[in-house]
Amino acid sequence: DFLGALSEVKAAFGVSDQDLNQCMPFGIIGFSPYINEIMKMGKALTQQVKTTETEKLVSVLLHGPPGSGKTALAAALALNTEFPFIKMLSPEAMVGMSEPARIQYIDNAFRDVYKSPLSVLVVDNIERIINYVPIGPRFSNDILQLLLVNLTRKPPHDRRLLIISTTSDYRLLEQMNALPCFTKEIAVPNLSDLSEFYNVMDESNFLNDAEREKIINTLQHDNPQGRFNLSVKKALGHLD
Amino acid sequence: DFLGALSEVKAAFGVSDQDLNQCMPFGIIGFSPYINEIMKMGKALTQQVKTTETEKLVSVLLHGPPGSGKTALAAALALNTEFPFIKMLSPEAMVGMSEPARIQYIDNAFRDVYKSPLSVLVVDNIERIINYVPIGPRFSNDILQLLLVNLTRKPPHDRRLLIISTTSDYRLLEQMNALPCFTKEIAVPNLSDLSEFYNVMDESNFLNDAEREKIINTLQHDNPQGRFNLSVKKALGHLD
Amino acid sequence: DFLGALSEVKAAFGVSDQDLNQCMPFGIIGFSPYINEIMKMGKALTQQVKTTETEKLVSVLLHGPPGSGKTALAAALALNTEFPFIKMLSPEAMVGMSEPARIQYIDNAFRDVYKSPLSVLVVDNIERIINYVPIGPRFSNDILQLLLVNLTRKPPHDRRLLIISTTSDYRLLEQMNALPCFTKEIAVPNLSDLSEFYNVMDESNFLNDAEREKIINTLQHDNPQGRFNLSVKKALGHLD
Amino acid sequence: DFLGALSEVKAAFGVSDQDLNQCMPFGIIGFSPYINEIMKMGKALTQQVKTTETEKLVSVLLHGPPGSGKTALAAALALNTEFPFIKMLSPEAMVGMSEPARIQYIDNAFRDVYKSPLSVLVVDNIERIINYVPIGPRFSNDILQLLLVNLTRKPPHDRRLLIISTTSDYRLLEQMNALPCFTKEIAVPNLSDLSEFYNVMDESNFLNDAEREKIINTLQHDNPQGRFNLSVKKALGHLD
Amino acid sequence: DFLGALSEVKAAFGVSDQDLNQCMPFGIIGFSPYINEIMKMGKALTQQVKTTETEKLVSVLLHGPPGSGKTALAAALALNTEFPFIKMLSPEAMVGMSEPARIQYIDNAFRDVYKSPLSVLVVDNIERIINYVPIGPRFSNDILQLLLVNLTRKPPHDRRLLIISTTSDYRLLEQMNALPCFTKEIAVPNLSDLSEFYNVMDESNFLNDAEREKIINTLQHDNPQGRFNLSVKKALGHLD
Amino acid sequence: DFLGALSEVKAAFGVSDQDLNQCMPFGIIGFSPYINEIMKMGKALTQQVKTTETEKLVSVLLHGPPGSGKTALAAALALNTEFPFIKMLSPEAMVGMSEPARIQYIDNAFRDVYKSPLSVLVVDNIERIINYVPIGPRFSNDILQLLLVNLTRKPPHDRRLLIISTTSDYRLLEQMNALPCFTKEIAVPNLSDLSEFYNVMDESNFLNDAEREKIINTLQHDNPQGRFNLSVKKALGHLD
Ligand SMILES: Nc1ncnc2c1ncn2[C@@H]1O[C@H](COP(=O)(O)OP(=O)(O)OP(=O)(O)O)[C@@H](O)[C@H]1O
Ligand SMILES: Nc1ncnc2c1ncn2[C@@H]1O[C@H](COP(=O)(O)OP(=O)(O)OP(=O)(O)O)[C@@H](O)[C@H]1O
Ligand SMILES: Nc1ncnc2c1ncn2[C@@H]1O[C@H](COP(=O)(O)OP(=O)(O)OP(=O)(O)O)[C@@H](O)[C@H]1O
Ligand SMILES: Nc1ncnc2c1ncn2[C@@H]1O[C@H](COP(=O)(O)OP(=O)(O)OP(=O)(O)O)[C@@H](O)[C@H]1O
Ligand SMILES: Nc1ncnc2c1ncn2[C@@H]1O[C@H](COP(=O)(O)OP(=O)(O)OP(=O)(O)O)[C@@H](O)[C@H]1O
Ligand SMILES: Nc1ncnc2c1ncn2[C@@H]1O[C@H](COP(=O)(O)OP(=O)(O)OP(=O)(O)O)[C@@H](O)[C@H]1O
Ligand SMILES: [Mg+2]
Ligand SMILES: [Mg+2]
Ligand SMILES: [Mg+2]
Ligand SMILES: [Mg+2]
Ligand SMILES: [Mg+2]
Ligand SMILES: [Mg+2]
Repeated sequence: DFLGALSEVKAAFGVSDQDLNQCMPFGIIGFSPYINEIMKMGKALTQQVKTTETEKLVSVLLHGPPGSGKTALAAALALNTEFPFIKMLSPEAMVGMSEPARIQYIDNAFRDVYKSPLSVLVVDNIERIINYVPIGPRFSNDILQLLLVNLTRKPPHDRRLLIISTTSDYRLLEQMNALPCFTKEIAVPNLSDLSEFYNVMDESNFLNDAEREKIINTLQHDNPQGRFNLSVKKALGHLD
Repeated sequence: DFLGALSEVKAAFGVSDQDLNQCMPFGIIGFSPYINEIMKMGKALTQQVKTTETEKLVSVLLHGPPGSGKTALAAALALNTEFPFIKMLSPEAMVGMSEPARIQYIDNAFRDVYKSPLSVLVVDNIERIINYVPIGPRFSNDILQLLLVNLTRKPPHDRRLLIISTTSDYRLLEQMNALPCFTKEIAVPNLSDLSEFYNVMDESNFLNDAEREKIINTLQHDNPQGRFNLSVKKALGHLD
Repeated sequence: DFLGALSEVKAAFGVSDQDLNQCMPFGIIGFSPYINEIMKMGKALTQQVKTTETEKLVSVLLHGPPGSGKTALAAALALNTEFPFIKMLSPEAMVGMSEPARIQYIDNAFRDVYKSPLSVLVVDNIERIINYVPIGPRFSNDILQLLLVNLTRKPPHDRRLLIISTTSDYRLLEQMNALPCFTKEIAVPNLSDLSEFYNVMDESNFLNDAEREKIINTLQHDNPQGRFNLSVKKALGHLD
Repeated sequence: DFLGALSEVKAAFGVSDQDLNQCMPFGIIGFSPYINEIMKMGKALTQQVKTTETEKLVSVLLHGPPGSGKTALAAALALNTEFPFIKMLSPEAMVGMSEPARIQYIDNAFRDVYKSPLSVLVVDNIERIINYVPIGPRFSNDILQLLLVNLTRKPPHDRRLLIISTTSDYRLLEQMNALPCFTKEIAVPNLSDLSEFYNVMDESNFLNDAEREKIINTLQHDNPQGRFNLSVKKALGHLD
Repeated sequence: DFLGALSEVKAAFGVSDQDLNQCMPFGIIGFSPYINEIMKMGKALTQQVKTTETEKLVSVLLHGPPGSGKTALAAALALNTEFPFIKMLSPEAMVGMSEPARIQYIDNAFRDVYKSPLSVLVVDNIERIINYVPIGPRFSNDILQLLLVNLTRKPPHDRRLLIISTTSDYRLLEQMNALPCFTKEIAVPNLSDLSEFYNVMDESNFLNDAEREKIINTLQHDNPQGRFNLSVKKALGHLD
Repeated sequence: DFLGALSEVKAAFGVSDQDLNQCMPFGIIGFSPYINEIMKMGKALTQQVKTTETEKLVSVLLHGPPGSGKTALAAALALNTEFPFIKMLSPEAMVGMSEPARIQYIDNAFRDVYKSPLSVLVVDNIERIINYVPIGPRFSNDILQLLLVNLTRKPPHDRRLLIISTTSDYRLLEQMNALPCFTKEIAVPNLSDLSEFYNVMDESNFLNDAEREKIINTLQHDNPQGRFNLSVKKALGHLD
């Protein structure tokens, strides 16, 4: 049957739900109302891809500081679509590959994605995929160009595709004239006050009141009057 | 017979009318008088190519902001010529090709074009065809040089050619001394006021009055006093 | 006989008169006294190459804005010499060649030229032959060096050579320290007033008085008080 | 048995205790309280790697001026973990290797490390591993990218890893956006006053009182009012 | 016999007197006292190479504006030494060679030179030999390094060598730190006043009084109050 | 026997005393007290290498202006050690080698050096060994990195090594962060007053009083009030 065939495709080339869940070991904690808003935006985009007659490609860019939760959110958004085929392009999967091997790999990913009528593609950490380093600056222009074209290329007849990209370097994409390639941009912020930090601790259930107080004292001591600005990653690190 | 032979050539190497129509799923909406003027300029150029005794090559550059409709207009202009052979060079068709493969491909396109007595060649998104990125800046100089020479090279005896190029980066072509390669430049503007936006909505027939009002409110809210400046692409995106 | 042998050499490797005439479909219109002066300078240089005992290589640089008629004048000067062997190096002939292939091709051209006792070599559009683009800037240094040496290299015993080069980028050649390679520099100017434009129209016989007036009105409208500055190429384009 | 198997793995691919001890021929002298604090931080990180349920990768960066003792401390911290598998990536081991050979070598190191359930990896002198030189600047971007991804990549299921990196060029890592790859940063300072220098001399037992006085006089003479700032390396050099 | 053997070596690898004479078709005209001084300096250097017990390598740099006579003087100085072996490295001889071929060629030249007990090597137009162009700037660093080492390398036991180099770009050699490679620097100036120009005309015997006056009028007209500054090359060109 | 074996090693791979003596045809003239001090520093370093229990590698950098005597002093210091194995890395020995061949050669030199229990390695003219030129700047980073690691790498068990490097470009090594690779830096100055020049002349015994006076007059005439600053090389050149 059709659904069976689909899940075979997924098994063969896609990323498993388990792999995606590994990107968010704590699930998604709605530590601020904005996190929930992001999830809602994901729903709307999912709907748009599924129902529109004209825009069969929707492409989102999640951008924010290191460790702010971009990859976790991208994985959650991808899983929430419940689309039959999910694929992920990540620097970890391409580590140590030569440039031509990477190009082949990315090319194949898009081919796979176009095989399913309804797919999600996560392109995680664009600056690392293109081997970007600010000194120089250097990066693989061939990989960048491959991405730029594929991010805007209309899927073949009867195919619909949601692309979710992440980056820690918004200004880089701006300088590269890459922003017009995205239909939508979503900022992913750091924790911006103590109450958000409490929320993370409450929902992750790791600390008792004493430990909590100790950590908060440390944080306040580190940053007496400065603006509270902590990545979820660091916050969760403190929990251990 | 001759016409039959021509259409065979087209079938074998050219781009089909269907492919070109895919570049303008909504047709061409004359949302401003200027759009119609562009179509008229196309007619005049077509006439010039067909009748002149001396200028057997005419080369136009459509330039404008991302999503302003350059590719759609280029396709429409090409189709309107009703020339027997139409060819299109686009980044999508060359995606993932190595530089030598691209050079071969472009070289073949010009060879094909010279086989027909009367042809149109669309060169879409020049900056992407040459793998341009502003950081560096980097691009394939070999592909650029190939284009620069071919854009001004006289067609062989008894051949006439209209070249329609597009770019989102006019200043780049200026800096590259590429502007003198074009016989004519045509600017493609964004929607510049609400009435143009209404026109798009009216002609595309997607929205009822309530939806229309909602979108316009959003737009005004986004841009309270600022100048109205929206690409057709974004406008049509809002329709969904 | 000797002359027969010469014309065979020409047939085998040189450029035919017909090819050169294609560079000036309207002939050379003496739209300003300066154009005639250029033709006279050509005569003097021809004489110098033919008769001097010491300077067996004369090398001219025609420089001027895009479309000002450099290639047409180079072709006319070359034909007027009535030298038995004429060769032309042009970007069109080398389009799509790899760098080593170009080097081979240019090297062969000089070899061919040295076979005839009296030759003209046209090196058209130097900046394009070396694949120059101002962004970077980039160009083939190997091809440039090949040209620089060959432009000043004494022809072998009993051989005499006139080299006619053209460029739209005088400052580039200056920056490249290439100017001392030329024995003589000749500027090719644009049309600089309306009377010169009239001359072009008169001699090309394309327009009646009404059409002429219309075009001139357009030109004056475009450029109300500004200095008149129009390339012959554009002027002849207006004729159609 | 399991432990036997582990020590075989270590013998086959890891670095021996003897090799690590060669990095600190004088052991670790606690010449300032801060040195002892560094050793304590090492203990805490070891504990974190061993016990946390979530953070199975901990990555430390030791940074400080040339000769300040980074490599010695990294070796000591690694040995103190008593983890069953210790590996070291150092420029000395890769000297004269081509870039692809280095990439292979580093890739293998990470593979080896992931074979053991609990490992330490020392990445010594990052700027030298990537062949960095400030003039240009030049470095191997491929090796850098390989490190950046591997420094943050989650170890496979059931594997835990402590990475201890060293650099003399903190600002370089900052400019390369590499700092977020490290969970923790530890500064390694130079000797900052005479008493610290006394401590080094006392604990190393090399000098009698007369020699000690002589050296200190020299040091004071070199640096009459300036801030005392001497690397342990130079200090130990003076002992001979 | 020994001298016979020497002249055989010369015939096989060296440059013939005839080739050198072609570099100065008019001989050397002593148009200013300084020219004669240069010839005398050459004599002194010749003596130094022949008789010194310690400095078996003497290396001169002739530098001056384009066309000032550097190559002619280098050839004259070389011939005047009457050394049994003379070799010349010139851009013309290496035109179109790949970089490795050039390196091989230069390497062989030095090998040949070391075969004779007493040799002159002319290295003409260093900037062209290294493919230098100021835009970039670009040049072959491998060829430059080969020259830099060979220009200062002690000849093998019992061999004596005079190297005469020329350049039009003194500042380039300065910027490349190449000046310390030369034992002596000799400036070659342009003609600096009318009397020097008269001398050239007198000694070359080409003009009668009327022609002479005409040319001088032209020169004065070109340069009414400016400093007289004309290369011998241009001066001799005017003679035709 | 052991010493015999050692001298065989030397004969096979090392540099002979004769080769080193060629670097100082006049021996070492102690023209200033500082020269003698340099020789004494060499003795101290020799002692340090031989006797220390901990620092088995000592690395000196001789730096000074071109021709100041760095190579001569390096050779003298190396010979004075009377170590059983002396090796020399010099640009002359690597001239015309490709980069990989150089790397192989340098790598072999260090291998050879580690075969002897007590060795000296002279690394002459570092900037030339790495093919450095200030324009660009360009140099072989691979060779530089090879040197940087080898200059600080601990010799294998029971091996002791003295490295003597020379450079004319101290600031270059500073900019390359290479200075911390050297245990000691020794400046080699030019002759700084007339008395030092007298010393050179006295000890070399070349001039009688009349000649001496003449040269000194020349020198004073060249440099009326300026600071006396002459390289030994130039001074010795004047002797001929
Ligand atoms: N909203 C959230 N709720 C729960 N856990 C989260 C949330 N956001 C992030 N995390 C967790 O925080 C850690 C860091 O998040 P993640 O790796 O997604 O950040 P990132 O922005 O992708 O970082 P990087 O810039 O390194 O790519 C992960 O373990 C992730 O599961
Ligand atoms: N005048 C128009 N009438 C109707 N639809 C239009 C018009 N112009 C553009 N469109 C539609 O808008 C969308 C964007 O247009 P198009 O892709 O041609 O823009 P573009 O300027 O080529 O964009 P890019 O800068 O990305 O290349 C397409 O779906 C196109 O069909
Ligand atoms: N003096 C002239 N008389 C008649 N026709 C001319 C004259 N000069 C140029 N033309 C014509 O004008 C057109 C442009 O001239 P041409 O191609 O020689 O200009 P160009 O300076 O070489 O241009 P480009 O900068 O593109 O190389 C050609 O068709 C040429 O025949
Ligand atoms: N705390 C310490 N106690 C004893 N010896 C030390 C200490 N720190 C460093 N040393 C010794 O000092 C010398 C230099 O230290 P080390 O090589 O670790 O410095 P480094 O910072 O890694 O230098 P580099 O910048 O060259 O890599 C070594 O011999 C080392 O054993
Ligand atoms: N002193 C001289 N007497 C007679 N003829 C001379 C003299 N100097 C130069 N010439 C002649 O002038 C012409 C140009 O001289 P030459 O080629 O040596 O100059 P150059 O400085 O080497 O030029 P370039 O900068 O192009 O290499 C040659 O024909 C040469 O023979
Ligand atoms: N102190 C000295 N006593 C005697 N001769 C010396 C002395 N120093 C240098 N010389 C001699 O001076 C000449 C130049 O010295 P050397 O080549 O060592 O200088 P350098 O600084 O290495 O030059 P470069 O910068 O070219 O490498 C050589 O012949 C050398 O033998
Ligand atoms: Mg991430
Ligand atoms: Mg487009
Ligand atoms: Mg032209
Ligand atoms: Mg270290
Ligand atoms: Mg010359
Ligand atoms: Mg030296």
